[in-house]
Amino acid sequence: MSVARVSEKRYLILAEEFSHDPHYAKTARGVMRYRRDDVVAMLDSPRAGESEDGVPIVGTVDEALAFEPNTALVGVVTQGGHFPGDWQELLKSCVSHGLDLENGLHVRLRDIPGLPELAMQHGAELRDLREPPADLSTATGENLEVDATIVLTVGSDCAIGKMTAICELDLEARRRGLKSVFVPTGQTGVAIAGWGISVDAVVSDFLAGAAERLVVEGGKRGNLLWVEGQGAILHPIYSGVTVGLMHGSAPHLYVLCHEVGRTVVEGDPTESPILSLSELVDLYERMSLKLRPAKVAAIALNTSSVSEDEARQAIAAAEEETGLPTDDPVRFGAERLLDSVLKLVR
Amino acid sequence: MSVARVSEKRYLILAEEFSHDPHYAKTARGVMRYRRDDVVAMLDSPRAGESEDGVPIVGTVDEALAFEPNTALVGVVTQGGHFPGDWQELLKSCVSHGLDLENGLHVRLRDIPGLPELAMQHGAELRDLREPPADLSTATGENLEVDATIVLTVGSDCAIGKMTAICELDLEARRRGLKSVFVPTGQTGVAIAGWGISVDAVVSDFLAGAAERLVVEGGKRGNLLWVEGQGAILHPIYSGVTVGLMHGSAPHLYVLCHEVGRTVVEGDPTESPILSLSELVDLYERMSLKLRPAKVAAIALNTSSVSEDEARQAIAAAEEETGLPTDDPVRFGAERLLDSVLKLVR
Repeated sequence: MSVARVSEKRYLILAEEFSHDPHYAKTARGVMRYRRDDVVAMLDSPRAGESEDGVPIVGTVDEALAFEPNTALVGVVTQGGHFPGDWQELLKSCVSHGLDLENGLHVRLRDIPGLPELAMQHGAELRDLREPPADLSTATGENLEVDATIVLTVGSDCAIGKMTAICELDLEARRRGLKSVFVPTGQTGVAIAGWGISVDAVVSDFLAGAAERLVVEGGKRGNLLWVEGQGAILHPIYSGVTVGLMHGSAPHLYVLCHEVGRTVVEGDPTESPILSLSELVDLYERMSLKLRPAKVAAIALNTSSVSEDEARQAIAAAEEETGLPTDDPVRFGAERLLDSVLKLVR
Repeated sequence: MSVARVSEKRYLILAEEFSHDPHYAKTARGVMRYRRDDVVAMLDSPRAGESEDGVPIVGTVDEALAFEPNTALVGVVTQGGHFPGDWQELLKSCVSHGLDLENGLHVRLRDIPGLPELAMQHGAELRDLREPPADLSTATGENLEVDATIVLTVGSDCAIGKMTAICELDLEARRRGLKSVFVPTGQTGVAIAGWGISVDAVVSDFLAGAAERLVVEGGKRGNLLWVEGQGAILHPIYSGVTVGLMHGSAPHLYVLCHEVGRTVVEGDPTESPILSLSELVDLYERMSLKLRPAKVAAIALNTSSVSEDEARQAIAAAEEETGLPTDDPVRFGAERLLDSVLKLVR
């Protein structure tokens, strides 16, 4: 990969007991995949001594020091978003060795008893990735002035690969030499990109304002912006975040994401059914801003749960149903999807 | 009005310089209209000596004491949601006389220098109506279990009379002896009802959860719930709040609100055009929860800016366009609209 390093970070990823789990270790896996160059070690004691994609896996912070990390990143989602006792000891061990800490969970590092004092004592910095900027306000219309093409991932549900799809598209665009920018809106995205806002942690009144700020900032970094989507338009729990993000980021184009085989909203106690792809295309387009009507440019299918044959069948079926170019950017590469998007760029 | 008093509040409404203004004094005017029995005086020094709807208008807190208020309510929206210098003196004068303070602005009373100390000294309580409950969480699906008919006002824009329409419908339903409940979702509604949550002040992740909590609480108070709507479905700034509230409150029916003559979104620097009534009906219905498809039962038109003849013409035109019963509940009474809603109650 010819992309310049985004920082002088040398990450120790904390993934104790979960480094293999795609759900609980979403942040660990995202950073391993899209920010690999900044990772020097991963901590997961049951796998100590192994390595993954060339990254050594260690059992303790002491062992990790041989690889000279300067920052420890919380790479897993812990139960209820809180840190259980063992984890608190692990975090304290990190700062005691002078490592900065980055955390994307709801709970804040400063609220862990004793940790702020220990960090100060050892010159370590505590960074909560979900903490919104203090000076947010309502959207102003500046989103419509950004001199860039804005592409937002939207989806049939949460946790279907929206961030992965957009990271693949951004990587492919950068490989082609385009001034492409991944615009992160959630904690994993922020950990990968080293900037951004976790929009679901923002006060509702300022949600569109936060999304607007992200595309304005993105426009200073490039002219092809890939905005990480959140939730789904009819998600019973998170639809407000989805729509606020849609209107605040003012996309020209959508990439619609779906996971093959998913029929009900995940993590929704009411088990609400998911809309069909053609219903989703229509509803997302109709719900775009009156002054910035957005079209679905392509469909990104997550086919990880089915065979390659079934994946190709599902892709063909989605193209047949919607008339839109469809592919799985992880399994088959992002080339076709990127071509489809670029064809529609003014 | 035969409705029992909701509290032992004796309000002094603070409306300095703005008591006549329907926009800046939204809270003052809402409480005067829908909680008149609990108001003993209003403060607006340029009008001192006058009265309004039998409520004496005073120039100072000292003068107000003759009417034995126990609570001073901030009745106006001040510039930028902050309290300018004069207002800070006014608030201090209130607590110095032992009056509790209620405030629905973004800025919190506890952040006014010296005010908390003064309040403690004089035994006065400071209540910020926009402060969300500390224990909110994501929606659980309990909204679908509430044993009541839920009606939500939705609209073409902000500030078009959604709260007024629903207060009129609730009043009329209570006059008929129904177990009707106004469910407030904004600071003025909270001031009127004495309970509720300002949903726009809630963290985005918990928006639907807050709306759900409100209808669950409403279901304990009655079986016909009138939920105050917020924003508009394509409002460039507040749509996230609108949709989160729609899905969290899980209405069976909508009342669609619109102001005659309004063509662009108010307070939107981009001057986004407003959708037609028939587009709005269709979009709100399609955006309802898959497990709780909601229909627009009727249209509430705010005709305050036109003559009575023009009002009747506008109502007829809206009925012609949408095929839905339409009326101005303030100008012509809420009877017809309530009949239309009740016809659709299971």
